[in-house]
Amino acid sequence: MNVNSALISVDVVLFRLNKGTLQILAQKQVFPDGITLLSLPAGRIDPQTDHCLDDTALRHINNIAPFNVSYYEQVITIGNARRDSRGWSLTVLYYALTQNNDAENTPDKAQWVNLVKGLPETSLAYDHNRLVQQALKRLCNKVQYSTLPAYLLQQEFTLSDIQKAIYAILGKRPPMRSIRNRFLRDDILTRTGHLRRGSNRPAALYYLNEKVQGKLFDRLYLSTQ
Amino acid sequence: MNVNSALISVDVVLFRLNKGTLQILAQKQVFPDGITLLSLPAGRIDPQTDHCLDDTALRHINNIAPFNVSYYEQVITIGNARRDSRGWSLTVLYYALTQNNDAENTPDKAQWVNLVKGLPETSLAYDHNRLVQQALKRLCNKVQYSTLPAYLLQQEFTLSDIQKAIYAILGKRPPMRSIRNRFLRDDILTRTGHLRRGSNRPAALYYLNEKVQGKLFDRLYLSTQ
Repeated sequence: MNVNSALISVDVVLFRLNKGTLQILAQKQVFPDGITLLSLPAGRIDPQTDHCLDDTALRHINNIAPFNVSYYEQVITIGNARRDSRGWSLTVLYYALTQNNDAENTPDKAQWVNLVKGLPETSLAYDHNRLVQQALKRLCNKVQYSTLPAYLLQQEFTLSDIQKAIYAILGKRPPMRSIRNRFLRDDILTRTGHLRRGSNRPAALYYLNEKVQGKLFDRLYLSTQ
Repeated sequence: MNVNSALISVDVVLFRLNKGTLQILAQKQVFPDGITLLSLPAGRIDPQTDHCLDDTALRHINNIAPFNVSYYEQVITIGNARRDSRGWSLTVLYYALTQNNDAENTPDKAQWVNLVKGLPETSLAYDHNRLVQQALKRLCNKVQYSTLPAYLLQQEFTLSDIQKAIYAILGKRPPMRSIRNRFLRDDILTRTGHLRRGSNRPAALYYLNEKVQGKLFDRLYLSTQ
């Protein structure tokens, strides 16, 4: 076997927050035996249209629907003779974040799947459950020292929305004081001038300053160790 | 073009410390025009012998000489139509660390190259200078919150050796107090019971406890920001 014939795919775990629950995007795939299973957006590189691997990852999301991808990152490349019965295969794994937009239509061929205790509520085909676990692990690490939680929120959000996003991912809630200390520094957020009014006292609405894309902080949240 | 014919290679940046200087391993490669250039240990996957990509990375180091690899990690996969003139190509980039052993022979076909200001002192072929920069960036990040510096040292080392290793990589020197606070906690190091005697007062020698492989700390060194 010539390794240059190794199967190459790019697999993407697209996360969103929906009513406080972390979800991933899955597509419905009909297998030869007539069974429909869920799998990750994934597929081959198209050398005609993809200039680089990032393009491939984004294209496979867009093949399902034009979701607004607010952040994406490569996680790892897994390559071995075991994961595909057809032979040596490589998958380049990405994760991406999207801001939940209720107006956004999810097509019939796709489904958002809740994550429960770090696994898809409905099991995915192939080794995709394991890929989700690897992407989630990276996300869990990184929300602790970066601005990532904000990329899962609507364009305008409150500081308390950030806290809820972190809780949805980690199951742990850093104190509001820590969140204020980080996010209200260094021009990370800009006040919209609007307030969100609800049952509590009105809360200031912010948006993420584009210049700080993917900023890292210098330590984890102490309370979420 | 069928993407399954994309060129796949695994490239490895092997770092070592030599007399306080960070170096990388390069191999001498004779090009068709008779010119000899230096390049990274790299090459194809061998599906007959490599069970996974990690095997490929380690094999390409071992093709040069049986260096004792104390730590290794995948950095990123770069894939695009530009980096190889023959067409769409993927490279899976690794970095690895080795404990410098003076008795170790570097064969004629290889050379250790000093890193000066983040670049190989002698320029490498292809886009390998850029690969070195990417691997070095990951190393620089990670030495700030992990036990990695110890993987570049001889099997027995002093706390001051750790400080010197960090200095060789970052050009910044965290205070000995910070190093003691981290490394003398949680059974990371074990005292050998021996002392190193020199011009200063004798310093305790330690070895790295294998159980803590790749341990991460919860914050960066404040003084090295």
